[in-house]
Amino acid sequence: MSAQVLSRSAQKLRPSVFSELTPRIKELGERCIPLHIGDTYRLPPQAALSALQRVASEELGTTRYFRYTHPFGRAELLEEVSKKLVRDNGIAVPPSGIQITCGATQALCALAQSYLDPGDEVIVLCPHWPLIRGIVETVGGKVVDAPYKETIEDPGAVLKPLLTERTKVVYFANPNNPDGRLLNGTEAERLYRFCAEHDLHIWSDEAYEHIVFDGREKVSIGSLDSGADSPRVASVFTFSKSFGMAGMRVGYVAAHPSLMESIRKVSTHQIYDLSDLTQELALAALKQTPDQYQAFLSEQTREYEKARDLLHTAFPDSEKSPGGAYLFVEFENREQAWNTMLAWLEKGVSSAPGEAFGGLHPNYLRLCFTAVPFSRLKEAVEIIRSVPRA
Amino acid sequence: MSAQVLSRSAQKLRPSVFSELTPRIKELGERCIPLHIGDTYRLPPQAALSALQRVASEELGTTRYFRYTHPFGRAELLEEVSKKLVRDNGIAVPPSGIQITCGATQALCALAQSYLDPGDEVIVLCPHWPLIRGIVETVGGKVVDAPYKETIEDPGAVLKPLLTERTKVVYFANPNNPDGRLLNGTEAERLYRFCAEHDLHIWSDEAYEHIVFDGREKVSIGSLDSGADSPRVASVFTFSKSFGMAGMRVGYVAAHPSLMESIRKVSTHQIYDLSDLTQELALAALKQTPDQYQAFLSEQTREYEKARDLLHTAFPDSEKSPGGAYLFVEFENREQAWNTMLAWLEKGVSSAPGEAFGGLHPNYLRLCFTAVPFSRLKEAVEIIRSVPRA
Repeated sequence: MSAQVLSRSAQKLRPSVFSELTPRIKELGERCIPLHIGDTYRLPPQAALSALQRVASEELGTTRYFRYTHPFGRAELLEEVSKKLVRDNGIAVPPSGIQITCGATQALCALAQSYLDPGDEVIVLCPHWPLIRGIVETVGGKVVDAPYKETIEDPGAVLKPLLTERTKVVYFANPNNPDGRLLNGTEAERLYRFCAEHDLHIWSDEAYEHIVFDGREKVSIGSLDSGADSPRVASVFTFSKSFGMAGMRVGYVAAHPSLMESIRKVSTHQIYDLSDLTQELALAALKQTPDQYQAFLSEQTREYEKARDLLHTAFPDSEKSPGGAYLFVEFENREQAWNTMLAWLEKGVSSAPGEAFGGLHPNYLRLCFTAVPFSRLKEAVEIIRSVPRA
Repeated sequence: MSAQVLSRSAQKLRPSVFSELTPRIKELGERCIPLHIGDTYRLPPQAALSALQRVASEELGTTRYFRYTHPFGRAELLEEVSKKLVRDNGIAVPPSGIQITCGATQALCALAQSYLDPGDEVIVLCPHWPLIRGIVETVGGKVVDAPYKETIEDPGAVLKPLLTERTKVVYFANPNNPDGRLLNGTEAERLYRFCAEHDLHIWSDEAYEHIVFDGREKVSIGSLDSGADSPRVASVFTFSKSFGMAGMRVGYVAAHPSLMESIRKVSTHQIYDLSDLTQELALAALKQTPDQYQAFLSEQTREYEKARDLLHTAFPDSEKSPGGAYLFVEFENREQAWNTMLAWLEKGVSSAPGEAFGGLHPNYLRLCFTAVPFSRLKEAVEIIRSVPRA
């Protein structure tokens, strides 16, 4: 029996490009060096591991971690996230401006349902995180592609011609997935001002917030929203990338409390609440001493920067990503990119095709440099170098 | 600054009735006997606790539980759930007909986004689980209330007059939250046949599947879907109630694979994947020996039946719930119900107002008999008896 068509919006969703590749990658098994998804070889902070050990040895005689918790998130975690937002992002929101979510994905899904009516348009800076398109389209919204680099250089020139009566939101990732592009202070201010002038909301996806290389400046656009007459920024974060905790599924969204009321109601209807146990580990990561916290993130950045540089030796002509976890490599055309991806896969290196990242980049491949340890990444580089471009 | 109105659908969402009561309940602190939410005093199966201990003592040196897992759910868990569905529910679906979700809530949220276009109607059997209304309305769907008891007695008489061109789904919980009503074989067949004749889909919410009292027959309507020309049942389950694991947030939805393709794509866009660690605990609950598994559930039913009977002594004129975790108690009118709720709360017993459960039951209160141990429930009964009906 063929698949049944249910709602029109669900019909629009394409299966994840990763799930298409999965069977081929599975066949390779251990032989595959998986650079197609964003993952890490690094462990979470010791404080998070210790929290899990403490729960397992001391807390299993009670129902403490097996009951529902508050749908908005644990009060103590909201407090610590609020402090972290000031410290790391310059974003001033109280705990009432925060919702804990099932990863950054559910945070963005909650934003889509909170903000969009069918027909509303979201300008997405491209190349973009693969799932954002489906998240917007599932609620009947329309994605309008805009080039990232050109937009942050001159928002007016690029975005003005794209505005319609239904344009409601500008979405971008900072640092960006797949190319690691990020906003400095000037760029953030310029984009914020344009959005304020045209009454646009902003969804700032900062999943890779702490992974910034070469000592660059990266500014959270939400920091410009404090004290605004009409707050317009919802900032999305996660413990997945900064703390190697993708498997815990803890993310959050921060915005002025006047925006959060609606976001919170939607989130409650999406997942009710998040696991108290996984929130405990996230809390432990934030409650490290300032020294431990900083040391963990600094060491991670150093390691990832080395990994980026190593992978870059396979693509000396491509740009070195200023942040994030990927190289986004250009080919002459879609066919060459696709065939190269297949040739690498045959030799045991997986990558992700550019079309997953928006319509403007079919002639690209994305490779993750944080997914496997240095020695494996070295093997991957050798394999890539041994394969002539198709 | 007042709350900002974002999308029309989000605007429709009322804050959870529980979150309205929360501040008052918080004030009471430890003195409150919380019967207003569905929770449990029981621990998860020892096998699940042991799984957590094993991970904490053996697995923290690797990234095993900290990486992403498959968006559909771990393969081994899908396998075990498939076996459980045959064994406990008579539902024959392969692993490709299952999606693991963040509790039953996200399962129903995924169904709403998969099935409904704006304007589509969902018939909801009342009284109903509070969140279903918002879940349907958030995607622009319309909830049509139908009385549960009368509908399962004679679906044609009750539902036919409610059908429009846009009627797409019938939703009900079996056993029901808040009144524990459930479907026997005859009732399930009658309702299934009606839905098949009128080409309606069915969402069967079986969060309380194992909590059935007095040796009654409870039939999963999904068991009638096997081999149908047009499969039409999506069945929703969770580990929260059967295994005391609400804090793990593991649920799942089962349907014919032809329906599942769309549901899976939507779920991936809602949360990406679920925590591997919490899935490990769910898996352990299913992989108990058959004897352990049955003993855990039987003891739980015995305990909860005793608790139901105890709480019922405070309301000798009300119906004894045939399943589930609640008594749903009728008052003369909405005002009497509301004032009684407040009078109980003042003395330290919280309950939930009937209006949370659909428009047809404002003169009711719901009380959970599984939330606190027997001794505390006894105190609650004494308090309730000491308060004259307002």
